[in-house]
Amino acid sequence: MNKIEARLIQSLNEILSPDRVLTSDEDLVPYSFDGTAALKQRPGAVVFPLTAEEVSECVLLARRNNVPVVTRGSGTGLSGGSVPLDGCLVICLVKMDKLIEVDEKNLTLRAQSGVITKEIDDACAKVGLFYPPDPGSMKISTIGGNVAENSGGLRGLKYGVTRDYVMGFEVVLPDGTLTFLGNKCVKDVAGYSMKDIFIGSEGTLGIITEVILKVLPRPKARKTMLALYDSMEDAAKTISAIIAAKIIPCTLEFLDRVTVQCVEDYAKIGLPTDVEALVLMETDGHPVVVEEEAAQMMALAKANGARDVRAAADEAEGARLAAARRNAFSALARVRPTTILEDVTVPRSELAAMVAFIDAVAKKHKLQIGTFGHLGDGNLHPTFLTNERDHEEMHRIELALEEIVEETIRVGGTVTGEHGVGLAKKSFLKRQLGEGSYELMRSIKKALDPQGLLNPGKIFD
Amino acid sequence: MNKIEARLIQSLNEILSPDRVLTSDEDLVPYSFDGTAALKQRPGAVVFPLTAEEVSECVLLARRNNVPVVTRGSGTGLSGGSVPLDGCLVICLVKMDKLIEVDEKNLTLRAQSGVITKEIDDACAKVGLFYPPDPGSMKISTIGGNVAENSGGLRGLKYGVTRDYVMGFEVVLPDGTLTFLGNKCVKDVAGYSMKDIFIGSEGTLGIITEVILKVLPRPKARKTMLALYDSMEDAAKTISAIIAAKIIPCTLEFLDRVTVQCVEDYAKIGLPTDVEALVLMETDGHPVVVEEEAAQMMALAKANGARDVRAAADEAEGARLAAARRNAFSALARVRPTTILEDVTVPRSELAAMVAFIDAVAKKHKLQIGTFGHLGDGNLHPTFLTNERDHEEMHRIELALEEIVEETIRVGGTVTGEHGVGLAKKSFLKRQLGEGSYELMRSIKKALDPQGLLNPGKIFD
Repeated sequence: MNKIEARLIQSLNEILSPDRVLTSDEDLVPYSFDGTAALKQRPGAVVFPLTAEEVSECVLLARRNNVPVVTRGSGTGLSGGSVPLDGCLVICLVKMDKLIEVDEKNLTLRAQSGVITKEIDDACAKVGLFYPPDPGSMKISTIGGNVAENSGGLRGLKYGVTRDYVMGFEVVLPDGTLTFLGNKCVKDVAGYSMKDIFIGSEGTLGIITEVILKVLPRPKARKTMLALYDSMEDAAKTISAIIAAKIIPCTLEFLDRVTVQCVEDYAKIGLPTDVEALVLMETDGHPVVVEEEAAQMMALAKANGARDVRAAADEAEGARLAAARRNAFSALARVRPTTILEDVTVPRSELAAMVAFIDAVAKKHKLQIGTFGHLGDGNLHPTFLTNERDHEEMHRIELALEEIVEETIRVGGTVTGEHGVGLAKKSFLKRQLGEGSYELMRSIKKALDPQGLLNPGKIFD
Repeated sequence: MNKIEARLIQSLNEILSPDRVLTSDEDLVPYSFDGTAALKQRPGAVVFPLTAEEVSECVLLARRNNVPVVTRGSGTGLSGGSVPLDGCLVICLVKMDKLIEVDEKNLTLRAQSGVITKEIDDACAKVGLFYPPDPGSMKISTIGGNVAENSGGLRGLKYGVTRDYVMGFEVVLPDGTLTFLGNKCVKDVAGYSMKDIFIGSEGTLGIITEVILKVLPRPKARKTMLALYDSMEDAAKTISAIIAAKIIPCTLEFLDRVTVQCVEDYAKIGLPTDVEALVLMETDGHPVVVEEEAAQMMALAKANGARDVRAAADEAEGARLAAARRNAFSALARVRPTTILEDVTVPRSELAAMVAFIDAVAKKHKLQIGTFGHLGDGNLHPTFLTNERDHEEMHRIELALEEIVEETIRVGGTVTGEHGVGLAKKSFLKRQLGEGSYELMRSIKKALDPQGLLNPGKIFD
């Protein structure tokens, strides 16, 4: 295990203060992994800056001494983006947690990177505003992490993802320069959109310390519905019919049979465990439109073979119905010791076929896969229930994953819809992009971080 | 004047066919300028490829012979982005005009770069869909040009700009490589968002030959309103009140007194010529919501001092009211021989003060400036009415522009909201961005086009 030299630790203590520099083995353990299964590595030190200037000084120190830097927030990532490198310096931004401003006139919000995502939306809600991106981790994850990973969530089809709400940010570059990209202007074409290169760059190009977000008026009404199906095909047909009716619901989520069974077993919400697909639908906006769209969506679900369709009477019941989907991952995670959550995404029209394909692969390789995800935006989460110590089963998972990735690419999909490449998807990236795009992407990394200081070994081989 | 060698012309004739290669002086004249005032330069040759492969071959030939390449569509640009370099090769994409596919299931549209933007929306309208970006040039400009410039339009506040609708494209890189960036997936985080670097890169990084666009269901209703004010301050207060009421209209445009007078003089629509501000407002969506929002907006306009507020009875009358805004530039352009259209943009909260500032600058330098633009998104078009042969007046314009740019940057704005940097805004770019961001941007150009083949001398000095 690599250690950071005592001399450097001393310098870090001087830049920050000793209580914000962790170096003992027992202190480093909790920072050795993130939310990704089966990946861990001990950092050399973990520091907790309070200002962008402190971040910059730490980067400069690391740079002068050739110590790689890995940035993290709450560490909820699912592709190993914030897993340390052996002996690296981890810059943890959770103490930079000031919500600086809600600007109601310009419909923007300004916050330091360490603010919890849910607190962003809570601050909006107080003044009738709305921050739509809602990754599953939003109660724990930081907004800086969300921006670095370009996090998705349940509302992608109607509201887009984190990228669509980032207007600008302060960032520390690999050479320690502190700069601001973007501004509060709704329109800006002054040169290349540099901010878009940093959003979703997974900590490999810069360290984002403060963000300006776009926010929206909060929808006045919302209606939650649940539809149960005896066939996944019928669930997909319902979605096509809803889109054909020119309705864009804010949420269209599904769980397959394996996942429904695990959720019911875990949460006892009274779901029938013999359904092939459970679909959670939500529409939001003006009360009149919500009522009209909800009625149409329920009728379309029935017309397309739903066994049962129910609407929540109020917000509280809506939250109970949505809990089935919100609990999916936790419910699956308790079945076996290791849970490998995948993230393949296909054009919406290919979704039903893709779910069937995953089912067939599971049978072929005798694996337990629960699939859930975002029907509206084609983002699937096939989840392998396994035990990382069972090497033979882990090998079969590799084979299955290989087939799923191959099919995803064949139908024009992506190997990661919202979790990122990190360490977990590195081996698939070039195959998806092709040589030309892959080298183009690598040339950006080389241009912006020639020394390979920030999060080396992530995204690219 | 530089000529392209006969040997190269021969090769171009072989790659394409002689009828798609222009080289005679009289044929080159119409390709020596774009929509930007006072900028022209004769190219060495203009070619009209039909396929991406032909584009790639032309780029390779130019690269081998060190002939700079400038790409253009219809040439409606307003910052000199498609003005040729002396003796360069112009690749004109207007003959690549196939609208390939409207995919109703995935809500996407696929088209070659030379398709006229309005045809994109017309094709959408036929099946109840909607392509929102509506730059002033949309009846003439090509979708490829729109993507290269990240064009705005009148609907920025509610619907965003061109970038928000580009899901992917085929692009020829400076080394001739043909690659595809992006796909039909609603979510995709497989590495850096390379497509976002090319959108708005003004032909300096690659040549986009085909695009996949995101489209939306077409709004079922729309209501157009006109409000007249005796003070710009009151117009701005109305906008703040509308936003505070949690309404996001699709259009909030304004004309100042000079512009209203010119429009009335030109189009005789019966506008009073003594108003300080004319505001065009539109709301679209569900009929019930549109009626409700329109009533609220009209009440807010009256409550905030509008002298007169009228609503269009139907679409036709709406179009007539909107014509006042749509005609603004043409109306101003006929007053004096030269029209210099600026494009400064500020956070919405700074807009009224900025309009007043421009007014004061006009008086100070004894200039005729008509200002119109997008109240909802802070994008202003102060338009200098002048004569480029009057060097003394042109000098005063330079001084005035300098002051306007300085103030724009001071209040956190941008020197260009939707027209691009090109040649016209080059000298202001570094001042707005600061050294750090500017160098970062330049490092992208160097990494992706090290030879400086594509549109050299644009954006950067």
